Amino acid sequence: MRLDEKMLPVLAEEVRAVIIDTVKKNGGHLGSSLGVVELTIAMLRKFDPFNDRIIFDVGHQSYPYKILTDRFDQFHTLRLKDGISGFPRRSESPCDHFNTGHSSTSISAALGFAKARDLLGENRHIIAFIGDASLINGLAFEALNYIHETKTKLIIILNDNRHSISNRVGGFSTILARLSANTTYRRIKNAIRKYAGVRFSKPLERIRDHIKNLVKPSNMFDALDINYWGPFDGHDIKNTEEILELAKNYDRPVLLHFNTVKGKGLPEAEADPTKYHQLSPSGQAKSRTWSEAASHIAEELALNDPRIVCFTAAMVTGVKLEKFASQFPDRFFDVGIAESHMLTMAAGLAAGGVRPWVFIYSTFLQRAMDQLMHDIALQNLPVVIMVDRAGLAGSDGDTHQGLLDIPWGRAVPNLEIYAPCDEDSLREAMMIASKRNGPTLIRYPRGKIPDKNISVSSPDLESGIVKIYDGTQWALLGHGASVQTMIETRKLAEREGVALPAVYDAKRIKPLDMKALDEILTSYKTLAVLEENYMPGGLGEGVAAIIAERNSGVKLLRFGVPDVCVKHATQSEQRELYGLTPENIIRTLLQS
Amino acid sequence: MRLDEKMLPVLAEEVRAVIIDTVKKNGGHLGSSLGVVELTIAMLRKFDPFNDRIIFDVGHQSYPYKILTDRFDQFHTLRLKDGISGFPRRSESPCDHFNTGHSSTSISAALGFAKARDLLGENRHIIAFIGDASLINGLAFEALNYIHETKTKLIIILNDNRHSISNRVGGFSTILARLSANTTYRRIKNAIRKYAGVRFSKPLERIRDHIKNLVKPSNMFDALDINYWGPFDGHDIKNTEEILELAKNYDRPVLLHFNTVKGKGLPEAEADPTKYHQLSPSGQAKSRTWSEAASHIAEELALNDPRIVCFTAAMVTGVKLEKFASQFPDRFFDVGIAESHMLTMAAGLAAGGVRPWVFIYSTFLQRAMDQLMHDIALQNLPVVIMVDRAGLAGSDGDTHQGLLDIPWGRAVPNLEIYAPCDEDSLREAMMIASKRNGPTLIRYPRGKIPDKNISVSSPDLESGIVKIYDGTQWALLGHGASVQTMIETRKLAEREGVALPAVYDAKRIKPLDMKALDEILTSYKTLAVLEENYMPGGLGEGVAAIIAERNSGVKLLRFGVPDVCVKHATQSEQRELYGLTPENIIRTLLQS
Repeated sequence: MRLDEKMLPVLAEEVRAVIIDTVKKNGGHLGSSLGVVELTIAMLRKFDPFNDRIIFDVGHQSYPYKILTDRFDQFHTLRLKDGISGFPRRSESPCDHFNTGHSSTSISAALGFAKARDLLGENRHIIAFIGDASLINGLAFEALNYIHETKTKLIIILNDNRHSISNRVGGFSTILARLSANTTYRRIKNAIRKYAGVRFSKPLERIRDHIKNLVKPSNMFDALDINYWGPFDGHDIKNTEEILELAKNYDRPVLLHFNTVKGKGLPEAEADPTKYHQLSPSGQAKSRTWSEAASHIAEELALNDPRIVCFTAAMVTGVKLEKFASQFPDRFFDVGIAESHMLTMAAGLAAGGVRPWVFIYSTFLQRAMDQLMHDIALQNLPVVIMVDRAGLAGSDGDTHQGLLDIPWGRAVPNLEIYAPCDEDSLREAMMIASKRNGPTLIRYPRGKIPDKNISVSSPDLESGIVKIYDGTQWALLGHGASVQTMIETRKLAEREGVALPAVYDAKRIKPLDMKALDEILTSYKTLAVLEENYMPGGLGEGVAAIIAERNSGVKLLRFGVPDVCVKHATQSEQRELYGLTPENIIRTLLQS
Repeated sequence: MRLDEKMLPVLAEEVRAVIIDTVKKNGGHLGSSLGVVELTIAMLRKFDPFNDRIIFDVGHQSYPYKILTDRFDQFHTLRLKDGISGFPRRSESPCDHFNTGHSSTSISAALGFAKARDLLGENRHIIAFIGDASLINGLAFEALNYIHETKTKLIIILNDNRHSISNRVGGFSTILARLSANTTYRRIKNAIRKYAGVRFSKPLERIRDHIKNLVKPSNMFDALDINYWGPFDGHDIKNTEEILELAKNYDRPVLLHFNTVKGKGLPEAEADPTKYHQLSPSGQAKSRTWSEAASHIAEELALNDPRIVCFTAAMVTGVKLEKFASQFPDRFFDVGIAESHMLTMAAGLAAGGVRPWVFIYSTFLQRAMDQLMHDIALQNLPVVIMVDRAGLAGSDGDTHQGLLDIPWGRAVPNLEIYAPCDEDSLREAMMIASKRNGPTLIRYPRGKIPDKNISVSSPDLESGIVKIYDGTQWALLGHGASVQTMIETRKLAEREGVALPAVYDAKRIKPLDMKALDEILTSYKTLAVLEENYMPGGLGEGVAAIIAERNSGVKLLRFGVPDVCVKHATQSEQRELYGLTPENIIRTLLQS
């Protein structure tokens, strides 16, 4: 980029306009990207995105980077099927060096890149670009702690927008707040002067006014033996460039702390950063969601059972626990982006006689599987895991699909798994979970909950599979969002005049309802299992084992997500892609 | 305990004698337990193990606690089938409040217990007892960071033996070292005096000499807003009791830092703490292990490919990488107990053009499943995961079995999974992995590798299932340690004069070798699948899906670990328990 410095604010304004325009149309992450426009411009003027390695943490702040590297022309396809991803993707551009989506991976990955550079004798800069909320996750701490051992050079850019997804949590935030308030400069000034004095007297001259922003190394970073410089104003491009130039030429790992304003340039986003963290595509109906229904039922249960407490990991608005939090402030915990700690702390509460409910997206539960197994399941503790955004999850792309909770959960002893398809079934599962003396996982889809109930109630606690419709030669068995698809499949069969399939709702995935399965396996020649999860380890395989062990002669068909990475698209486009549609199911049944 | 103070050193000596005697016979963790005898005595004199909640981290240091609470008489059954566990188990004693085995859970769990106490209006002390090695894991950091938010009281006892399992890693260790060296006392002295002056002038008088050991709060703990007192001598019972008394009566969370000597009281263990961390039962033959074979092959591969680097998470002796580490110091990384970071850093190295090999126990891989999925598999990066101690793992008990790698791994896209049964198959899998442009998981059992190869080589890269023996009506299909069982089953069939089963070695679990499976499904009426992992999501279900989809008429039998918690016992006792024996297989085949 050879733009005149005076033109940079104009450039920043244009980048913001493109982002706001596109996100309002397509949906996506708004606040984080608006906050880092100047930082990104400065970074791209000082580093080479083709040769250097810039690793974004989470990656939802990478929109300005995409626009300014090589994707300006495609940016209007953001998050659309076959368009560009809302996160860095190596398949998309040579400037994207590491795929992300989940938080706190950037420092570990950057350490890997730095050691690879050293071992291969290459010459490039490695930059981890991380937000303040991501820094409190254990993975980021493990990486910070390990820098000391690696004897390599990397630059960590800490983008501190002091809002994070919800609010920043924990003792560590007090350091950042303290640092942000501090304008004195002691040890670091001398350190920089000593170093820069030899080789950078000129740049140092020029930033004399700014160097007063340098404070002494923070307690935490100092303790971890990491050089800390900051805080700086992340919206001052010229100053940022000078700091980056110093950091490039410094011979040790360094963490640069920039303060930025989340949602910068869009007054309503600056004023309400949580609301403007992520937008839905324009025109999307605001009907009642699964998250709203689940949190509403949790409030009802909590009113009647004072032992119930609820947890979230920085997703209070996503899982819709705002009302619970204000209604039961002593019984609500937002632990920040710390999923592992959340599950183990819940285990402690349960062992102590309390009934914790953990609300978490399916994709983020992947971060706490050992805690589910080792701390909760092996002790058979009554923790309820409310798994939101389970199944095909849409436009966030491959890092955010909820496809592993069932395959991974099925192998966890003592765990019961429910996958309701409507509000009554959700309530039923939550009632059962509230009374169980062991762990329960309840998974529900992203998006709208059916307006009317589409299944039937379970006759008793033992029944985990219920029949919605009778049929003749073939039966459909599915759970969650697939129940709607099964009902539509039956309607299509009716319209097309083909044999009507029976429809069975697998409300409980684990343990399997063997009585109902007996009935199915003795009544139909063909059984089609539908599931919105990866098929290896899924319900279909569980049913297959019964069929093959009994040698029952029933032919099995499976519809689900195959063993591939699921690209961003809308949920219905993803269902189409993997054949989870009435048309494909009828066609396959007729061919079977 | 009402022992005269003068008798306490005698008690300590007796406890040590019981531990040394038992561990030499039964095997178990020696060094950690010997190091905390005095700390445990002091703790039990100041806290009530029935009412208070003492949460051990990892738990391998809980032997003195077991002996001194209610298990002196049973201690000789340590780690034996139906005997007491080598870790805290709630099912074993009302004094064990939280099951452990994996590291770094204690502070999260203690926070849970503390909040449960507050919510239920109970009156008890909550103590997290954690070693220095566990403190650098991300889970412990997430919990430390969250203390600030909880506004509750708990006591963290940091047992700093400065050796950990191997050596302590990372920048954080520098703080502890600095603190351990510091004998001045500034801020904390005033803080304690101010507080204790009112209510504890007498105890304070008495410990005036010791209070000089109190130093100012460390950078890290101060930053996290946690009160830090220490370091103290963890072998001085009287002083420890006084410190504990102060901590009990202090009204805020406090971390007490004790220095102890790992292996204390056994000169050879003090001199070589790594070797004496864990002992095998006496009389156990020292033949070549799977770990030795795997690391040896890795050395060979690394000699020919300079891009190969190896990782371990504090298990260098467990996975036998000592020689690799000394041979290739620049290409070896011990990240400490930081499994999540290890996998993401490996992903970064792979994305940077290096070929990382990660050596990890199956049970600890559970800590890094999201990193395997999100950072490695979704990017299809060439990282090799060498999964040691896979399958039934013996006396460490339910927290240490390796039963989830296959069920969880099968659902991860792009991942290939190998389960060799002998050294040639291991080498074959490692050769394939070294050339793949995607992630590979190779799992191998705990213990001795067969002296001679028992399988046959694969004709080509496509073949993941090979036939070892022909048969007539039935076939056996299994992997890893089960191949030996299948061969013995065939021998038993021969001896008993029943129809000889064919034996197939499933070297590769994923993707399935469909060509070989075709042959099996068209040649035999009955197929028995053997697997040392949880059956839900295992190979048996994968094969079942093929059988049921083809409606092929083959009857399936499955032998594997059912959906339960696996208690401590020897590996062969565990195999007996779950029917993974020739006798049970023949009996079941005959009944089928």
